[in-house]
This record gives sequence, C-alpha cells and structure tokens, in this order.
Amino acid sequence: MEHLIERTLKTNEIFKGKVIDLEVQEVELPNGKTSSREIVKHPGAVAILPITNEGKIILVRQYRKALGKTIVEIPAGKLEKGEDPLDSARRELEEETGYKTSKLDFLLSFYTSPGFADELIHLYITDKLEKGKTNMDDDEFLDILEVSLEEAEQMVKDQTIHDAKTAYAILYLRMKASQSL
Amino acid sequence: MEHLIERTLKTNEIFKGKVIDLEVQEVELPNGKTSSREIVKHPGAVAILPITNEGKIILVRQYRKALGKTIVEIPAGKLEKGEDPLDSARRELEEETGYKTSKLDFLLSFYTSPGFADELIHLYITDKLEKGKTNMDDDEFLDILEVSLEEAEQMVKDQTIHDAKTAYAILYLRMKASQSL
Repeated sequence: MEHLIERTLKTNEIFKGKVIDLEVQEVELPNGKTSSREIVKHPGAVAILPITNEGKIILVRQYRKALGKTIVEIPAGKLEKGEDPLDSARRELEEETGYKTSKLDFLLSFYTSPGFADELIHLYITDKLEKGKTNMDDDEFLDILEVSLEEAEQMVKDQTIHDAKTAYAILYLRMKASQSL
Repeated sequence: MEHLIERTLKTNEIFKGKVIDLEVQEVELPNGKTSSREIVKHPGAVAILPITNEGKIILVRQYRKALGKTIVEIPAGKLEKGEDPLDSARRELEEETGYKTSKLDFLLSFYTSPGFADELIHLYITDKLEKGKTNMDDDEFLDILEVSLEEAEQMVKDQTIHDAKTAYAILYLRMKASQSL
C-alpha cells in the first residue's frame, strides 16, 4: 500500500484534554504535494452487548452533550490509562447496568471515525449476568432499557437507534443468530 | 428525558480547522454538580453503498492519517458547506469510484462517536451505476475493490473490514437481502 501513504512532515499539538487530544499534522501526499490533517487522539473504548437470562439485550439511554440530546446505545465507555479492554468492559457493564459477569467474550473491534479520529472500540458480548447494583461515574446519568433482538432490530430499522456501534452490534448479533438456526 | 440533560454554563472555543472545530463546554449535571465536555464539531458526512450491474459492492482502500494505515471503507466524504447530502453523495461517489448515478436512495443516518463528536453520516445506496472517470480531491488517493455481498460479509467477520460505518452498511444490506428472499 506504499503508493497511498502520507508522510508526516510536522506535528502541531493543539490541545490535551481529559478525554481527547487534538493535533494538526502537515503531511506529504503520495504525489509529493503537502496538505494538513486534523487528528483527534482518543484512548480507545469498549462496548458490551449484554444479554439477560430472558434473552433481552440491555441498552442505555444517555444524554450526549456533543449531540445536545439523549440517544440509545449499548453500554460503552472509554479505556482508562493502561487498562486492559476486558477489565474495562467488565467495569463499564457493572457501572452502567448494575450487572456483573464472569464471562465476557470478545467479538470484534472497529474504528468509528477514521477520517479524523483514531478511536478504536472493542466489542464484547455476555449472556451470563448476575444482578449487582449500578455504580455510575460521578458525571454519568442514564436510563436502562431491555429489548428483544427483534425489537432491537426494529429500532435499527426505524432509526430509534441512531448510533453506529449499537446498530452494528445488533446487526452482527442478528447475523450470528440467523446462521446458527 | 429532562432528568438526563446537561446544561451548558460556558463554551470555550479551542480550535477552528478546515474539517473540525473543537470546544470545551462547562456543564451543569442533572445532580447540580459541574463537569466539562470536550466536543468535536464536524460538518457531517455521506457514505454510499454502490452496487454494480454484476451485483458487486464497490469498496475503497484509503490511507487514514489518523490511524497511520490504510483501511477498507465504502465511499464516503464530508459535507461541503451548505451542500445537500444527496448532492454530496453523488459527488463523492463519482470522485472516488468514477461511477455516476441518477438514482441514489437514502437508507439511514447515524452518529459515529457520540461521546465526543457530533458527526452524523447519511447513508445512500444505488444499483444504477454508469461508468465515468475518477476525479479525486487534490489530497485524496485510493484503490478500488469490487466484492460480492458474501465476500463483504466475510470481510466483516474476519476483520478485514475494521470500519464501523462500512460494517454497519454491509450488515444492513445483508438483513434487507435476507428479508426479501
């Protein structure tokens, strides 16, 4: 893929935040010309598809300040510094839904916005949940929903679910379910 | 959803770029405490699922500076100022793949990174393609791939496709295809 690579000439650090950093890179394009790239650095995140004993998917409704509204998502959260994604997934599941688990299976990982950010989300699934109690972050407030796979699929179709990672996870689960029939 | 809302107390504009802007908002949480939110403003984007006369999906392999590597995606690009998403989709399709179309159907829209960015992607589909010629942006370089739906699905499963919007679009197409059987 050598013919597609952009070489960094200079990196300007613009901002270091508590969640993201921002830098602007001057790059040399494959044709020798130069351009600039605005790049958001993100620590990475985990998301979890939690399935109850009754076969329901647990979703959370959360206010997202970036959007100025609430949206429905699977439980998710950013990686803490040096944290193993599996530990992070277990922690986020318990914090957001109140469920504990001793069995989390890794499904896949994906980039969310490769045009401007390096965020990589690791997706886990579990169908072994034990009821604990919610223990949200100081700055986290959310409602919990439990829906069947058919209901979740309908929420993707009618755009009640408007979040890429959540829709992807539900359609992935549906593909797996249809293949095991 | 009143009990989940975060009220903005102050907005600090950090950066205005050619693609994204960055601001930090001080917010009042539902419990009355304050916190800060780092928010990336994005103009929004379009993505296209182009299907050839032979039933192949057109994908592009592109170097993404944010990731430091090439990844496989459906054709996509950001909205120009004041541009209608449908016009943008037609333009991006032709620029990136060389195909023109007079028929683009809107499928759905989704947020990519609601935790820190407002990017909303509008997804279109077309199976009416006419061969034109590629006309990429000055700073855009990519390779074109044509794959069957089965091959695309396999690329999602084996993580050759590592991009959320692309995997979501392919699994959505698969769901629709399986329902019309």
